[in-house]
Amino acid sequence: MNIALLGFGTVGRAFYELALGRGDLRVTTVLSRRARPELRCTVTDRFEDILRDRSIDTVVEVMGGLEPAYGYLCEAMRAGKHIVTANKQLMCAHYDELLTLAQECGVSLRCTAAAGGGIPWLTSLSRAARLDELTAVGGILNGTTNYMLSAMTASGTDYTTCLREAQALGYAEADPTADVEGYDARRKLVLSANLAFGVSVREEEIPCFGISSVDAADFAAWREMGRVCKLFVRAERHDGRISAFVCPTLFPTASPVAQTNGTGNLVTLRGARFGELSFSGAGAGGYPTGSSVLSDCVDIAEGCPSFYVTRHEPKPIDNSAAVSRFYLRTGDGGTCTGPITVAEAFARIERARGEQVFLARLEEE
Amino acid sequence: MNIALLGFGTVGRAFYELALGRGDLRVTTVLSRRARPELRCTVTDRFEDILRDRSIDTVVEVMGGLEPAYGYLCEAMRAGKHIVTANKQLMCAHYDELLTLAQECGVSLRCTAAAGGGIPWLTSLSRAARLDELTAVGGILNGTTNYMLSAMTASGTDYTTCLREAQALGYAEADPTADVEGYDARRKLVLSANLAFGVSVREEEIPCFGISSVDAADFAAWREMGRVCKLFVRAERHDGRISAFVCPTLFPTASPVAQTNGTGNLVTLRGARFGELSFSGAGAGGYPTGSSVLSDCVDIAEGCPSFYVTRHEPKPIDNSAAVSRFYLRTGDGGTCTGPITVAEAFARIERARGEQVFLARLEEE
Repeated sequence: MNIALLGFGTVGRAFYELALGRGDLRVTTVLSRRARPELRCTVTDRFEDILRDRSIDTVVEVMGGLEPAYGYLCEAMRAGKHIVTANKQLMCAHYDELLTLAQECGVSLRCTAAAGGGIPWLTSLSRAARLDELTAVGGILNGTTNYMLSAMTASGTDYTTCLREAQALGYAEADPTADVEGYDARRKLVLSANLAFGVSVREEEIPCFGISSVDAADFAAWREMGRVCKLFVRAERHDGRISAFVCPTLFPTASPVAQTNGTGNLVTLRGARFGELSFSGAGAGGYPTGSSVLSDCVDIAEGCPSFYVTRHEPKPIDNSAAVSRFYLRTGDGGTCTGPITVAEAFARIERARGEQVFLARLEEE
Repeated sequence: MNIALLGFGTVGRAFYELALGRGDLRVTTVLSRRARPELRCTVTDRFEDILRDRSIDTVVEVMGGLEPAYGYLCEAMRAGKHIVTANKQLMCAHYDELLTLAQECGVSLRCTAAAGGGIPWLTSLSRAARLDELTAVGGILNGTTNYMLSAMTASGTDYTTCLREAQALGYAEADPTADVEGYDARRKLVLSANLAFGVSVREEEIPCFGISSVDAADFAAWREMGRVCKLFVRAERHDGRISAFVCPTLFPTASPVAQTNGTGNLVTLRGARFGELSFSGAGAGGYPTGSSVLSDCVDIAEGCPSFYVTRHEPKPIDNSAAVSRFYLRTGDGGTCTGPITVAEAFARIERARGEQVFLARLEEE
């Protein structure tokens, strides 16, 4: 397998190194605006060179963003090349189009690195979906917020200081919005739910509450309750309806989720008959994420199908039957509700907008 | 894919049910001494019928024990049939012979259900081994002892009462030796190490300490230390040497391993570059284990290779460089050692034989 690598940031470089010296595949071309004399392969800044090169059978995209990545991948598929991408934004925005095009072109499309970093989450999920009806997926799928919440829980550091520390350590971006508001986790939830349930759900339909309005009093209250807060994603299928949401969630201190600290991710799937399976590991970082990209390439080299699943039926999100207790802060101090629907909880927060609000779901003990 | 199912106990029945109604595979014959009029397939008590039936391409063995299972599987492979087995005892006792025969016969051999129950552990391990050099595997791989240790930790129940409860619940067998002495976990460790490192290690070379001599004073001491005891298996590769052992291990209370309770299993692998990945779920039970059997069948139907790995180089176990602190009880009360080798710890216990001894490793914090 001859690979063209689009993008040479942290993940691109780690993937390049992991691929060095392998017999089954090699990176023959890197698309880069900069000259990279240290590389032992062709370096070009023109995508057309890659497109025209018939010796390249697989394109690995780790550039990020919607364009030009989307255009490149579509052109590559039309030229008969397989695709591996780590781009969750792109996979969510153009899910149906990309799957359909891959099937039409008879090429493989893989995006394991787009959710869970180094955890073989999307592959495990699609393998599990072959065996049983999956009824739920959920987990910690954002390393930045997990690092911040872990630090705030452990040391009582305030949100702003903690964010600065995360930025200094390279765990948070200069503009942290996508991480702290939950949008990054939501995209990973979209891919997880799509693969688990054979559906196609829309990112913007999934209610999402982030961690940017959390304050020290919340942490004190949760400590009193014997709870630890994690930014958690969850989707369930019940009676043909899909519920899905991204919400800070309070877990009992002595639970594996509560003990998942730092930038670690932990994800769980539930089969109707075989029960729950959990996967944990590094949710980000060059080598972990690069190894998921490499795993996709090896799967393609071994002749895997066009996509993880064949079905991608459009499905609306319906949170009107998912019931939980919530920690709700509108104004001074948080209070715990009785069992209400997720739809109702988000509606209450919506109504209180403009005030200093925070919402967290209480996981059942 | 047409499957003959050898054995119709808890796992066999669950697999049969999970396979019902699938398009890609079906159970056409069940080998059973008893008539089973409730089944919609052929039931026979003669293995020759299965061997001669050319329409059967895959044999699933969930009988357990060495014979007649070993003879059946060898004959089936020679007749060109693929093999799926949940039999860890058999896979450990005849590892090299079974792999070699599968390769010679050009058939596939899978045993995912033999370690970790419903957790896709052996498949995940072999997939990870394609990506990076694996340096360690370890985990809780025995549900019976984890149930017992969890109960003793939580409620202070004594060993004998706890064992009787586990037997009443169906979590422990009438003769609990293989579970409580760690032999079951050791077989799962053999398979894990073999797949992770591309070696073939011998079960009887791996030192093994079980939980049958644990007493209430030990639990009290560990509570004081802020530790929780788990029966843990571990193998590492370092400088070409393989260390491996089965030993009760003391984890900090606030760690995911310590929080893995009941019959749950949790296993971890470490890649030299991509770091640690953990997998947890039900380590036993009909549907979980049956789903791993089904997963193997689906992999074979999709054309997976002969075995998980191609290498199986014989390797001795060498624990002379693996260093840890230990909790050691010889006579009255346990004491914690400084850092000593695993070989030395087991030698000290060996010397104290005849006394009431207990050994537990202290996991680094």
